[in-house]
Amino acid sequence: MTKNSSPQIWLYDTTLRDGTQREGLSVSIEDKLRIARALDELGVPFIEGGWPGANPKDVQFFWQLQTEPLKNAQVTAFCSTRRPNTTAATEPMLQAILAAGTHWVTIFGKSWDLHVIEGIKTTLSENLAMIRDSIEYLRLLGRCVIYDAEHWFDGYKNNPEYALQTLTTAVKAGAEWIVLCDTNGGTLPHEISQIVSDVTNHLKEVKLGIHTHNDSDTAVANALAAVMAGATMVQGTINGYGERCGNANLCSLIPNLQIKLGYQCIEDNQIALLAETSRFVSEVVNLAPDEHAAFVGRSAFAHKGGIHVSAVERNPLTYEHIQPEQVGNMRRIVISEQAGVSNVIAKARTFGIELNKQNPATREILEKLKALESEGYQFEGAEASFELLMREALGTRQLFFEVKGFQVHCDLARGKEINNALATVKVAVEGKDILQAAEGNGPVAALDAALRKALINFYPRISEFELSDYKVRILNPNAGTNAKTRALVESRNGQQRWTTVGVSANILDASYQAVVEGLEYGLMLNVGAPHECAVHII
Amino acid sequence: MTKNSSPQIWLYDTTLRDGTQREGLSVSIEDKLRIARALDELGVPFIEGGWPGANPKDVQFFWQLQTEPLKNAQVTAFCSTRRPNTTAATEPMLQAILAAGTHWVTIFGKSWDLHVIEGIKTTLSENLAMIRDSIEYLRLLGRCVIYDAEHWFDGYKNNPEYALQTLTTAVKAGAEWIVLCDTNGGTLPHEISQIVSDVTNHLKEVKLGIHTHNDSDTAVANALAAVMAGATMVQGTINGYGERCGNANLCSLIPNLQIKLGYQCIEDNQIALLAETSRFVSEVVNLAPDEHAAFVGRSAFAHKGGIHVSAVERNPLTYEHIQPEQVGNMRRIVISEQAGVSNVIAKARTFGIELNKQNPATREILEKLKALESEGYQFEGAEASFELLMREALGTRQLFFEVKGFQVHCDLARGKEINNALATVKVAVEGKDILQAAEGNGPVAALDAALRKALINFYPRISEFELSDYKVRILNPNAGTNAKTRALVESRNGQQRWTTVGVSANILDASYQAVVEGLEYGLMLNVGAPHECAVHII
Repeated sequence: MTKNSSPQIWLYDTTLRDGTQREGLSVSIEDKLRIARALDELGVPFIEGGWPGANPKDVQFFWQLQTEPLKNAQVTAFCSTRRPNTTAATEPMLQAILAAGTHWVTIFGKSWDLHVIEGIKTTLSENLAMIRDSIEYLRLLGRCVIYDAEHWFDGYKNNPEYALQTLTTAVKAGAEWIVLCDTNGGTLPHEISQIVSDVTNHLKEVKLGIHTHNDSDTAVANALAAVMAGATMVQGTINGYGERCGNANLCSLIPNLQIKLGYQCIEDNQIALLAETSRFVSEVVNLAPDEHAAFVGRSAFAHKGGIHVSAVERNPLTYEHIQPEQVGNMRRIVISEQAGVSNVIAKARTFGIELNKQNPATREILEKLKALESEGYQFEGAEASFELLMREALGTRQLFFEVKGFQVHCDLARGKEINNALATVKVAVEGKDILQAAEGNGPVAALDAALRKALINFYPRISEFELSDYKVRILNPNAGTNAKTRALVESRNGQQRWTTVGVSANILDASYQAVVEGLEYGLMLNVGAPHECAVHII
Repeated sequence: MTKNSSPQIWLYDTTLRDGTQREGLSVSIEDKLRIARALDELGVPFIEGGWPGANPKDVQFFWQLQTEPLKNAQVTAFCSTRRPNTTAATEPMLQAILAAGTHWVTIFGKSWDLHVIEGIKTTLSENLAMIRDSIEYLRLLGRCVIYDAEHWFDGYKNNPEYALQTLTTAVKAGAEWIVLCDTNGGTLPHEISQIVSDVTNHLKEVKLGIHTHNDSDTAVANALAAVMAGATMVQGTINGYGERCGNANLCSLIPNLQIKLGYQCIEDNQIALLAETSRFVSEVVNLAPDEHAAFVGRSAFAHKGGIHVSAVERNPLTYEHIQPEQVGNMRRIVISEQAGVSNVIAKARTFGIELNKQNPATREILEKLKALESEGYQFEGAEASFELLMREALGTRQLFFEVKGFQVHCDLARGKEINNALATVKVAVEGKDILQAAEGNGPVAALDAALRKALINFYPRISEFELSDYKVRILNPNAGTNAKTRALVESRNGQQRWTTVGVSANILDASYQAVVEGLEYGLMLNVGAPHECAVHII
């Protein structure tokens, strides 16, 4: 994996374990598998899959991975050492970690004397025995062991000798990596730097890792300080998800380590997957992406109109610390109240459409865009709707059908739980008015079904379209139930997928707009050849 | 201002200038005044108010401040040096900054030779003259000058001699502070540390400041590194607002500097205003607060998971890096999937309900909780629904009314845009079945209105309740329009607010569940005295 002579850093992702501790984040087994595959593509060598002893969902995740293994990454199972006054062989948690069937296991143990005595109420020597027994047992059964030293930095500050004893015990028992954890996230970079140096001096030839949390808003800097002091494994999560204030963000650490500091973490072409991986994971866990995230956020390379834009186009170096493309992000010209024609041309170019100042459509698109964006539309996540808007202005939008209106009726009397919604649509197609109705397990499903029934005889290929994702966001939450909603709909046809958007004070109206444009765009894909920028190959 | 012998750090807030560069943030003059007053209360000594030469809104802000001055803070006006080949006295921007009438002014100039030659297309010596003339002119007219060295770190790396010349020019012209700016945010802490040390060696006795951006996710660590290398002024913004990835976050810097590193920034009792100030500013600028923000986020001291909770209750130090009360925040026990019996007991205690392991209701609550969470319910943000669930298990839930069913009808024919939704509800209350209907600007608004009409005669105080926030999330987006949706509803009654949740495959059903529980909880607040933990004082 090492390239040239760059020193190697081993990434260890814990999105699927520590990341899921984030308040408000919950994932299904299928979600976990999708994230694991994305991390594998990204080139992360170690993926912590979960804690099979504590969570039944994680047991199934490991089983499923055995039948569909990842390409390159090692998946590790996580667990604590045995409990006080038991044996490793009879400890159910250790049996669960073995049953996960992974080659690598991660065992965490206590470094802080206070935790040993007050937390788990045992003796300092029994804690050492717990570390030793657990690691030796797992080694005996053929596992490679990563030892996570929990509360390492607090423990070391309180009682350095005892803390170091826990590490030497783990090394002697056969742990391959020792990971120093700042569990409470309270340590600052200069302390990390000093303490990691102390450890490297004390435990020569031992491979060290670092695991930091963001409670002091310095998780990334802490991990960098540890690497510069000798750590060669870096633990973190995608988007910095994690308990409380989160873990060190791998989306920031990877470019800092590899682009800025010259370490080798993943292949250079894999770094370009970073922005996409960040967004993919936020979609899977269904959290709004942080638009202001370093490197991968939508605003990370956003420039406002005017002098700034022409300066950045002349020499990007003057306003951008790295090239956005290196991390798979892109420069974005912000369309604001002062937006000019040149901004629209620059923005259209990011969608692969060439406009020029002389074309009257350019100004028309600008006006339309401004009006729609002020209503709450947003086209960055809905390229298909943006392309329809541009084609409308350019006179190249084909009218396949026209929805004249729709009605939705929901009846939720007690006991009536399925097909409780009925939708009626009136669609003009090929000069005829078609009226159709359908039921569904909710108003949007009913609406989608009614539209398809109305159109299928005219456009049989509609049967191949599938509505594959549906998201709703409230735009001005303080307006309560009168708030505007934005619906995003992702459609696919077996080979491609595309996204459309709708906005309305009525949640059903917003959904309907996006569903209708999704069908229209799919039909256009069959007859013409819309630009590749708005469709994604599955 | 200095207390004991702690070294003093001067805070310089630029929320009102650099902060407003954040994409999606815009403020009125009144908003700016409210934020300035909150910063004054917090004890921030320097508040950058705006750029009067570039923004007419900022001119008015400064005028208004002259009639209603702040208590302690110095407000500074911001501006660039004069342009090339002009004189300071005839430069309109400098006239505008003088007209702002502040005692302190901040002038920024170019440090990077590349920017001088390529950006403003002038000579290196003319750039020095621009810095000198502008500062001398402002000094002559009685202003104290802070000099912001724009792109300092990139400039110094590219041409250290010239970069240092710009600083010595500013010092000789009479600047009182020299602020080193990492304008592109690309510098890492170890470089900041090295370069600030170089500057302190070169410019002895000069007061240095630091201004960092978060493009490398290290803005806070960068500012700390600069302080440890000799800087005594720290610039940043509340909540880290700022262009692209934001500025250094003062809400993280203040506790790191004062609680952890022993510097004196503001009074100790003012630090306890930090969480409140953070939330206040996010309210004023109308952005959702970052719940995971270090120190001040709602989740910053939230604890999840069994063992962890009992440990933190025994000895908070073991899982909290500072006391949450020091920054005006609080500890919070989170109810989640991983909850054990001890979590439920701890959570119940925060509602003023005493449970114990022997009480069969405890296990019943836990089972119910797990079943609902596996359906997609989430009580982390919906404490009022959780309290209703607990009261149900304990037999103390009062039945104010029972919704027997509802129907919703939406008609979105072309041209019909308001009151397009009609809702009908059937409610049993005091032994009677009440049938009511109402229209609305969307199905949820109609449903809410119909319920209120049905209940108002029985519970007149319902007229005081307001539905103040409404959020929808799709739980399993891959199921398309058949996905489950979760609706969160925040209600308020003038003094308090509370949040309820509903989950269903039908988006209207999910919303209805949350609306109904919101009304029920509000009625309970009037008759009994539910514990303060599920309600928030407005």
